[in-house]
Amino acid sequence: MSDIDFSKVLIAQGGGPTAVINQSLVGAILESRKFRCVDRVYGALHGVRGIVNEDFVDLTQETTHNLEMVACTPSSALGSTRDKPDLKYCHEIFEVLRAHGIGCFFYVGGNDSSDTVRIVSEEAQRARYPLRVMHIPKTIDNDLMINDHTPGFPSAARWVAQAFAGANLDNWALPGVYIAVVMGRHAGFLTAASALGKKFPDDGPHLIYVPERAFDTEKFLADVKATMDRYGRCVVAVSEGIADANHTPIAAKLAEQIEKDAHGNVHLGGGALADMLTELVKTKLGFKRVRADTFGYVQRSFVGCVSDVDQREAREVGEKAVQLALWGDRDGSVTIHRTGFYSVDYQLTPLEAVAGKTKVMPDEFISESGTDVTDAFRLYLRPLLGSGMPDAFRLRHNHVAKILKK
Amino acid sequence: MSDIDFSKVLIAQGGGPTAVINQSLVGAILESRKFRCVDRVYGALHGVRGIVNEDFVDLTQETTHNLEMVACTPSSALGSTRDKPDLKYCHEIFEVLRAHGIGCFFYVGGNDSSDTVRIVSEEAQRARYPLRVMHIPKTIDNDLMINDHTPGFPSAARWVAQAFAGANLDNWALPGVYIAVVMGRHAGFLTAASALGKKFPDDGPHLIYVPERAFDTEKFLADVKATMDRYGRCVVAVSEGIADANHTPIAAKLAEQIEKDAHGNVHLGGGALADMLTELVKTKLGFKRVRADTFGYVQRSFVGCVSDVDQREAREVGEKAVQLALWGDRDGSVTIHRTGFYSVDYQLTPLEAVAGKTKVMPDEFISESGTDVTDAFRLYLRPLLGSGMPDAFRLRHNHVAKILKK
Repeated sequence: MSDIDFSKVLIAQGGGPTAVINQSLVGAILESRKFRCVDRVYGALHGVRGIVNEDFVDLTQETTHNLEMVACTPSSALGSTRDKPDLKYCHEIFEVLRAHGIGCFFYVGGNDSSDTVRIVSEEAQRARYPLRVMHIPKTIDNDLMINDHTPGFPSAARWVAQAFAGANLDNWALPGVYIAVVMGRHAGFLTAASALGKKFPDDGPHLIYVPERAFDTEKFLADVKATMDRYGRCVVAVSEGIADANHTPIAAKLAEQIEKDAHGNVHLGGGALADMLTELVKTKLGFKRVRADTFGYVQRSFVGCVSDVDQREAREVGEKAVQLALWGDRDGSVTIHRTGFYSVDYQLTPLEAVAGKTKVMPDEFISESGTDVTDAFRLYLRPLLGSGMPDAFRLRHNHVAKILKK
Repeated sequence: MSDIDFSKVLIAQGGGPTAVINQSLVGAILESRKFRCVDRVYGALHGVRGIVNEDFVDLTQETTHNLEMVACTPSSALGSTRDKPDLKYCHEIFEVLRAHGIGCFFYVGGNDSSDTVRIVSEEAQRARYPLRVMHIPKTIDNDLMINDHTPGFPSAARWVAQAFAGANLDNWALPGVYIAVVMGRHAGFLTAASALGKKFPDDGPHLIYVPERAFDTEKFLADVKATMDRYGRCVVAVSEGIADANHTPIAAKLAEQIEKDAHGNVHLGGGALADMLTELVKTKLGFKRVRADTFGYVQRSFVGCVSDVDQREAREVGEKAVQLALWGDRDGSVTIHRTGFYSVDYQLTPLEAVAGKTKVMPDEFISESGTDVTDAFRLYLRPLLGSGMPDAFRLRHNHVAKILKK
């Protein structure tokens, strides 16, 4: 592969935005520019779609200062796409890369994007086109194989933990049932992160439902009732992707019309699941104050809630991808591996090991009840949330003796 | 009123929680303890409900350090209530206050709470019970009369601005129509705050719908279409309380079952409005990628998003309430008045001027189109958001010449 001409490298971003995806972008841009062999760093606008459309911007002309500002801005600065190239699409990609003399392509993205990189890599080899392609991981779902965790997840997890810490306080002040639906079709990591918002033993979320466990409506109602009986209030975290024992999504059961996006994934957005669960609790259990939120897009793009650990790691995977590409001799995915309490290292992993696969929560992270996380999960997640996590405090209740005692 | 025995004072919190309501609580507690005449500071748990139930805690036994930590924690630390006392309820309040020898009562709350304070004040005078009662303002809705703005609003406004800044970036990366429903039944201040998330001229929110302007579905669809034609994307901010020309809430039009809370307010929560607007845009305009969020409870209780200006002012209104109560000779509401660019002063305002009334956005804050804010509103809101507002940055698009030009 020494015949690769690295003078022009191309970077693109795919899939859903995260709070730190631009750290990876900027890490890759700045690291590329350190190599003598690299003359130009191009960015494709809106992922692979931008490649076939030749929508390139010259990132070499960008100032370092603005790049550093962009790195701290959430959501893909180059734009994103949901396109998943097939063979024909890949041929179009080669044609454009060849025409522009691009020798190295970095794609920042999740499962689907890593699969795109895999196809492009295989097609390049088949077509004997000298190209180095690298997948740089990101996804708030934390569902990439091999990786201890994925850039973007820690910041989203922090947002969810902070949201539940607040929701718990709100629910304490005005008691009742509160349900919040969290992103996650197949993996419950982000929903489970709600547990990190707990501080005092009676804090919520009292119940956590992840897609890794079959959701049973009767069991759910019994859980909520038991929690209300015990605490007089109940905070519930629910993954959007919860499904019954037959793997039928609870949300899909309701939706009369199911919208499918380009990847064939069922779109589970909207407030339908939250509103249905609310109605269930009201009608079946008779509780009056039942409220629900669907966290939605804000949990992945909110400006001003980021984990510094996540920022650092996202930057590093971008840098490492460039080093591994330009000094190495094979394509792959940069993966994160935990080495201590808390430290990480990065490795180059074959694309087949990551591409298009989904990691879910291991059993050791889910309590036996199926509605809580374990200490192992807390130990796993806590260091990822970064420094300066806000903390909640309570008044100590030094009760005054009643006089009238009515 | 010199016959008032100030040795015991009582504090309670009512209505919906805010990010800074405990600043006011702690301000009032610590200031009370500076007065020689005050021996005990009690807190009533869950507002006026806690008074009639004699659910008092002795805040004098609390440490200053923990009070300072509680001050920085969102959501009513004493708990809240939606109860709105009638005459009978007020007599029960007096009975308890008299039994416990309480001479001064501070109630932190919004419109409904200020009306409670008014009734309690009038009943005390009628019953010739020597009592000083003070209303300490708070509400994320920013709808209290006389006040330039109300504690709690700036932090909630900051949250909304940060959420829209992120949603705009997300919508730029993956273009389409994005709609977010913001809290606010009658006043559009919080929804209008979304405009402060804009930085670049083509940033969203491109359309802002507040309850102060009649909502017309056809006009809405035309607005969205025009924005899509112009920018290829569209970010929309909508108040939950938008209503048609006959003052019928758009959300209520849909809801087959309308739930009423204890104050007779229609509960407009849930994802119904967002989901209906999404369906409208999809079916009537044919756009495929239409997404919606309902910000819900998280916008008022999120831990870790607060305006330092809001914190300071919330603390001060608590302190001023105590000073005005113990050095003054009349009941009232502490109100915030803007005196410069930017500075404020506090005054004691008669309860009748504030109680149970609703302030809405003045015409000068709403653009002629009815779907944007004016510079006057930006000038009004910007200083309230406080320091360290996160900023969004973009890559400059130095386009690379196309070669294949397919």
